[in-house]
Amino acid sequence: MKHRFCPGYDDPPFDDLAGDYPGEDVYPAEDFRTEWGPIFHRGRLDGSARVLILGQDPATHESITRRILVGEAGQRVQGLLARLGVTTSYVMINTFLFSVYGQSGGNRHIKDSAIAAYRNQWLDALLVRDEPEPALCAVITLGSLAKSAYHGWATTRPDRAAALHLATLKHPTYPESASAKGGITLAAATAALLEDWNAHLAGLRDHVPPEAPVIDKPYGDTWQDGDLVAIPEVDLPAGAPSWWTSLEGWAQRTGTTAQLKRATITVTIPAAARTWPPIGD
Amino acid sequence: MKHRFCPGYDDPPFDDLAGDYPGEDVYPAEDFRTEWGPIFHRGRLDGSARVLILGQDPATHESITRRILVGEAGQRVQGLLARLGVTTSYVMINTFLFSVYGQSGGNRHIKDSAIAAYRNQWLDALLVRDEPEPALCAVITLGSLAKSAYHGWATTRPDRAAALHLATLKHPTYPESASAKGGITLAAATAALLEDWNAHLAGLRDHVPPEAPVIDKPYGDTWQDGDLVAIPEVDLPAGAPSWWTSLEGWAQRTGTTAQLKRATITVTIPAAARTWPPIGD
Repeated sequence: MKHRFCPGYDDPPFDDLAGDYPGEDVYPAEDFRTEWGPIFHRGRLDGSARVLILGQDPATHESITRRILVGEAGQRVQGLLARLGVTTSYVMINTFLFSVYGQSGGNRHIKDSAIAAYRNQWLDALLVRDEPEPALCAVITLGSLAKSAYHGWATTRPDRAAALHLATLKHPTYPESASAKGGITLAAATAALLEDWNAHLAGLRDHVPPEAPVIDKPYGDTWQDGDLVAIPEVDLPAGAPSWWTSLEGWAQRTGTTAQLKRATITVTIPAAARTWPPIGD
Repeated sequence: MKHRFCPGYDDPPFDDLAGDYPGEDVYPAEDFRTEWGPIFHRGRLDGSARVLILGQDPATHESITRRILVGEAGQRVQGLLARLGVTTSYVMINTFLFSVYGQSGGNRHIKDSAIAAYRNQWLDALLVRDEPEPALCAVITLGSLAKSAYHGWATTRPDRAAALHLATLKHPTYPESASAKGGITLAAATAALLEDWNAHLAGLRDHVPPEAPVIDKPYGDTWQDGDLVAIPEVDLPAGAPSWWTSLEGWAQRTGTTAQLKRATITVTIPAAARTWPPIGD
């Protein structure tokens, strides 16, 4: 086997979850990009995950790879996991199955019961396993909506929730979103994010058994070389191009009007992966 | 289950085939778009396929959906299968795992033994099954390269090949490729394709047990309404956007230079699928 890949949703209960997901009656199209389809997860569905990451919603790269948290946010999370000595023993789902459209769509729907009901089916499938003994011992939430979503599930399964270590982190793209809103610079928001993540490292290391050497080093107050880690091939579908794991961005929303921009994603192979013989024009 | 999806490559021998595929040492990057990754198949891998379609190579839409023959060529083939009363009981693989780059790349590599060796592993996996009794009773090749590839396999498995009905059809985009080369108009080449396909319908109907009513109607000398059929959802990965099955094109190579064009695919949701509330600019 030269390439490892994510086997997808062939086994129960994930076959049913991937076959019967909420549509536009639950996720209104004015607030969610339902047109790009649901994107369910990334990581292990076979019970071997030691930590669950609950993210917010998918974006451009995820709409192409059909797995969540593969763009820059995901690479920052992958780097956090590496600091815990976790390389592949995780599973990630999002608060929302579809990409949020607009600034406030997420806040508007965080309490929707039908959205929560489906999300809780996933959380039950991942967190409540009778056999074998659950390997999963910690939950990381990314951002306030994920934290709220997790607490919603925890009230339905208080005994299981009590046995899980919970780390409620700032969202990996908090620096960009907070500074775009104004009132804080990108540099200050980055430092705040990294300070927040540092504060959670010790607790996570106490609860998550590492599978690789722990990187026992705190974050600085800016992103450093090595803080972002490439997505492993085993998280992506069979035959995934190698640059889908790249640290360079390769998918963006294009289109000359807002209407066309919602309809369009342009995929451009990163320069470093253009390894074919040069083409003259 | 509201949505059906293709479970992918979880079961043997397809897990090994999807994990261990030839790279640029076998498929040279000057003649194949290896950078978009291999695209393996479309259809049933569970032994229920009644007919195998051997196509040529994947293109833009296939690079996004990660399944072969989903663009216009695939929709023409889906229409041919509908005429046989076959709606989902088929399996399709290509002669080449990667998209051919340039006019003559396919001809140049049709006899490559390493390319054939891997392709023959797939043909063995699909055509040579001991149990249960193989459902697969006919092979359709699309174009001369696929015909040549099939004959190459048949010499390795003469007994099995003798038991299979073979229909060697013109490639579904023969009209476009032949007229682009000159010497024949698009209209004449279309008529020639449809005449060729008509000539094979009776033989195929004699050998392939239908699963739905046979459409007992020959093609005309131009494409008619209903000749193209949408790809069924069950052929696509879990969570596929509905417009991935669309009869309208939605993926094209863009980029302002030949180099950038090789690096770029732009995905634009078809107008009919832009069902979100209109967005002002």
